Amino acid sequence: MIKGNQVIIPTPFNEQGEIDERSLINLLDHVMNLGTEGVITLGTTGEFYALTNAEKKRIIDIASERLKGRASLTVGASHSGTDIAAELAAYASEKGADAVLVTPPYYGQVTTEGMIQHFATIGLIGNIDLMIYDGGGGVEVPVGVIDQVRQLTTRMRYLKLTTPKPSKVREIHEAFGGEVGVLAGEDLLIMPELIEGAIGLTTAAGNLRADVLTNIFQLVQEKRYQEAQVLHDRHIAPQAIVTGSIRNEFIQCFKFALKEMGVIACDKVRLPLTPLSEARKQNLKQMLINQQLISAAEGSLV
Amino acid sequence: MIKGNQVIIPTPFNEQGEIDERSLINLLDHVMNLGTEGVITLGTTGEFYALTNAEKKRIIDIASERLKGRASLTVGASHSGTDIAAELAAYASEKGADAVLVTPPYYGQVTTEGMIQHFATIGLIGNIDLMIYDGGGGVEVPVGVIDQVRQLTTRMRYLKLTTPKPSKVREIHEAFGGEVGVLAGEDLLIMPELIEGAIGLTTAAGNLRADVLTNIFQLVQEKRYQEAQVLHDRHIAPQAIVTGSIRNEFIQCFKFALKEMGVIACDKVRLPLTPLSEARKQNLKQMLINQQLISAAEGSLV
Amino acid sequence: MIKGNQVIIPTPFNEQGEIDERSLINLLDHVMNLGTEGVITLGTTGEFYALTNAEKKRIIDIASERLKGRASLTVGASHSGTDIAAELAAYASEKGADAVLVTPPYYGQVTTEGMIQHFATIGLIGNIDLMIYDGGGGVEVPVGVIDQVRQLTTRMRYLKLTTPKPSKVREIHEAFGGEVGVLAGEDLLIMPELIEGAIGLTTAAGNLRADVLTNIFQLVQEKRYQEAQVLHDRHIAPQAIVTGSIRNEFIQCFKFALKEMGVIACDKVRLPLTPLSEARKQNLKQMLINQQLISAAEGSLV
Amino acid sequence: MIKGNQVIIPTPFNEQGEIDERSLINLLDHVMNLGTEGVITLGTTGEFYALTNAEKKRIIDIASERLKGRASLTVGASHSGTDIAAELAAYASEKGADAVLVTPPYYGQVTTEGMIQHFATIGLIGNIDLMIYDGGGGVEVPVGVIDQVRQLTTRMRYLKLTTPKPSKVREIHEAFGGEVGVLAGEDLLIMPELIEGAIGLTTAAGNLRADVLTNIFQLVQEKRYQEAQVLHDRHIAPQAIVTGSIRNEFIQCFKFALKEMGVIACDKVRLPLTPLSEARKQNLKQMLINQQLISAAEGSLV
Repeated sequence: MIKGNQVIIPTPFNEQGEIDERSLINLLDHVMNLGTEGVITLGTTGEFYALTNAEKKRIIDIASERLKGRASLTVGASHSGTDIAAELAAYASEKGADAVLVTPPYYGQVTTEGMIQHFATIGLIGNIDLMIYDGGGGVEVPVGVIDQVRQLTTRMRYLKLTTPKPSKVREIHEAFGGEVGVLAGEDLLIMPELIEGAIGLTTAAGNLRADVLTNIFQLVQEKRYQEAQVLHDRHIAPQAIVTGSIRNEFIQCFKFALKEMGVIACDKVRLPLTPLSEARKQNLKQMLINQQLISAAEGSLV
Repeated sequence: MIKGNQVIIPTPFNEQGEIDERSLINLLDHVMNLGTEGVITLGTTGEFYALTNAEKKRIIDIASERLKGRASLTVGASHSGTDIAAELAAYASEKGADAVLVTPPYYGQVTTEGMIQHFATIGLIGNIDLMIYDGGGGVEVPVGVIDQVRQLTTRMRYLKLTTPKPSKVREIHEAFGGEVGVLAGEDLLIMPELIEGAIGLTTAAGNLRADVLTNIFQLVQEKRYQEAQVLHDRHIAPQAIVTGSIRNEFIQCFKFALKEMGVIACDKVRLPLTPLSEARKQNLKQMLINQQLISAAEGSLV
Repeated sequence: MIKGNQVIIPTPFNEQGEIDERSLINLLDHVMNLGTEGVITLGTTGEFYALTNAEKKRIIDIASERLKGRASLTVGASHSGTDIAAELAAYASEKGADAVLVTPPYYGQVTTEGMIQHFATIGLIGNIDLMIYDGGGGVEVPVGVIDQVRQLTTRMRYLKLTTPKPSKVREIHEAFGGEVGVLAGEDLLIMPELIEGAIGLTTAAGNLRADVLTNIFQLVQEKRYQEAQVLHDRHIAPQAIVTGSIRNEFIQCFKFALKEMGVIACDKVRLPLTPLSEARKQNLKQMLINQQLISAAEGSLV
Repeated sequence: MIKGNQVIIPTPFNEQGEIDERSLINLLDHVMNLGTEGVITLGTTGEFYALTNAEKKRIIDIASERLKGRASLTVGASHSGTDIAAELAAYASEKGADAVLVTPPYYGQVTTEGMIQHFATIGLIGNIDLMIYDGGGGVEVPVGVIDQVRQLTTRMRYLKLTTPKPSKVREIHEAFGGEVGVLAGEDLLIMPELIEGAIGLTTAAGNLRADVLTNIFQLVQEKRYQEAQVLHDRHIAPQAIVTGSIRNEFIQCFKFALKEMGVIACDKVRLPLTPLSEARKQNLKQMLINQQLISAAEGSLV
């Protein structure tokens, strides 16, 4: 079952832009060592849209083997073509993944009926739960769509919420009870979504701070909101604001930070993503120093 | 060189949703018999986003062989990952295609610099011209982007215009002279874009009416606007309005019409597209009868 | 009761940009002479967003007096501030208007709850029915919102549908029966929306062709679809495609056409609208000649 | 001249939704006592779109009188109708305001030419500088538009940047030198925009923390980035993340916080804005306590 603190990891590349498997394994170990309950690969943060099918399968192979028994594995299986997404979901199922994370179809203008069929077709594949990515590709998933998908497949079990509507946590709970678990999915909205009753977190913030997020999650479960808020304001807000406020740079931010922290070897991204400006790197590095995630000596190099 | 009347064809499937190669060949012959100067495969109309890489290559093989020497071939090579798009462009180049049609990257929010690098990287591949798809995936391509792409590759030669701004035809001409040819790309805006000086047409309307479009194009070149308008209002407006006004149904409309006309065997689309409603089919069929594209007897079956 | 053929009229200005009351009266007479059952003022076509409150009231005064007993009057009462919209609705009610047409609030990002309260507050004002403008300001109104508005006010009676989803006509009918009448509201989608069961038309197309639209509407009611389609393809498609395909120019198109036809004195629009290009005027004029709405002699002046 | 720390204030209402003039004066004094260099009224934060013209003028009267000689005054003069916006700008000019803040026209789809004429017409009014609101109403203002507006009026002097592209600060500087000053305008992006060279701040964050923002601004001018970042991460990030991440609730957040802090009497907003949920209030209150902006005793009431 998917719950608690789930971390969405990037896909590390080497300088040539090829998948750096050693860095990937290192990154998996890093987030597990920080105490995460699950890992999500091939999400937006994983640059899924810029990977070939063969590369996606290789990443599933590596992650499923490395995490086996230590943490849950959720695999991004988003694609604008339903069958192509379903085929990847089947592969993830075969390899023992726990769930697939799926955005609405993102090319062109899709009808409500098309969105429902898309999710349901993928949900009916193999032996694997479906996590709908609300807000993925910029498209909100209405509660009515979730309802209809559930009538077509019992595998629809989770919602990653990134649409900026924390009240949707409660709305989903009122509609489906424990049958659909909502996971806070937007780094900038962790606290309001947890307070509204999210059953877990699916964030990129965990790449740097999975330990703090586990504590925050636990404190909120115990209704110790004030303590959770203090931890959040001290450690998560400064990070989330610099990594999360510019949507088309957050992947670069996490790669840069993980490289500075020595977790991955290289902060390369694939086109159409482009590197951070020097000003942005400076801003990010100063936050990492303030947070003692890197030492000032490293920071002084900038 | 790409100019004149270019038709964007759908990808015919059989009832099982597999590519129907015989219908594809039939469709290629049909549009060539109607007197088109070029064919575009793997565009949005071709459901490119729902085809595997192997299927795309197979379609390129068939089209390049069938059209050889009879009409130009433009191949859609859009993808959210730049390298994946470039790899397909290289394949199209190898097979002798004349140009690739490329939308802006369509997953997530892309920076201007990312869009420029995306187009330029594809334009530098192989021995094939680049046609930028302005408005593809809903994203307008600014004139400044085209300018910068041109500084990176001499292969940037064409713009398919679907953004509803016919004045952009003139704007592009003023900026780049004959170096960048604008092709009218939106079925609902054929006349205003031609009057503004488009060097050709890239439409799906040609699947049904390539002969009329060739005439209209010729009349506009001779500045016989009034005659062109009469032809347009009689034959193109009634078609374009029913097929083109609902963006997420136009592919289904063309497949349905081509099936009714006996050109392809089946009007199947792939998910996330869903079939037309009966009311829409009726509306479409009545237009086809009015236009004498099918006989009333066929229409009376509805 | 609002039904049948309703025409949305522009607001005529003189060369100085002031309201031209004589042209307004002429225009009201013109559409009534063409046999329309109702008139809508202060819609988007009426440039409501660029009129002062005093001007809006003056237009209501003139229209209510001129139409009295001859046609229904619907008044646009859209505004981003709920109270300001409600105040205008109260005025329209006082002056005997039959309904108010209201878009969702259009400045900023509005919550679902905010949209519901907005409509309900206006619906509770005075003694006047509410027509929700689905798609107004580019925002779709979900069926669930209509349901909740209806629980707050019995005055919610009509939906002007411009979102390109003709199937919504049926969806609304299934949800609310005869309690909420859907009016086809998009010039490019008249036939599919009527076939789906719209109880009337609210179009700008009627400014030029109210007589034909009345016939089409009647034929569809008698299920004589084929005849309706022939009329549509001959007279409405050529007009709608040239006036309706470029969203930010349709007001200018109708003013230009009405001026050419001698109905209003001047085609002036207020900023931020800007005049049509010469190419667009030419395109429009040729359609008017083809349609015999103006004589070729007038057209030859271009 | 507009520069340094500028605060965008809300419009205080009483329980009946009328303007609370005493609270407004209190709020003006509060932000000046915190050391702000200027105040912006009638921005989005001021709910300008829900105020009558008479109310707007009254607010200008009060603010211009209260601030006289103590701080600069910028007045929001946004409206979808150009002439109506210009008329308010003229009033602000008469009353001695220093600048007007203007969004692109926000109803309907506006052409580039329309946007240019809109800004230029307002800029030519009276004796008052023009601050273009980039990103206002969700619309980005291209650099080319600014260039053309400048050719029509010398009054175009400032850009409030809210589009999430800090690099635009540099881009504008490279294009226009000191002729156009960019002010950081998005609470979540204060640091990256300042590091890129913004000449000042126009934020709502200053309502709570104008003193800290003045310090941050000063430190960045002295290139003491690390110290600025520490202050930001400690005091601004926790506030900005809770108030700024949900776009359609930030006005409510500031009103609630200012009420809790005793600056204004009531946190009433006008429809279509709706009140915060209890969960959101709790989240906000805990941040205020952590920041020692209110005492824990007040917080414990929740």
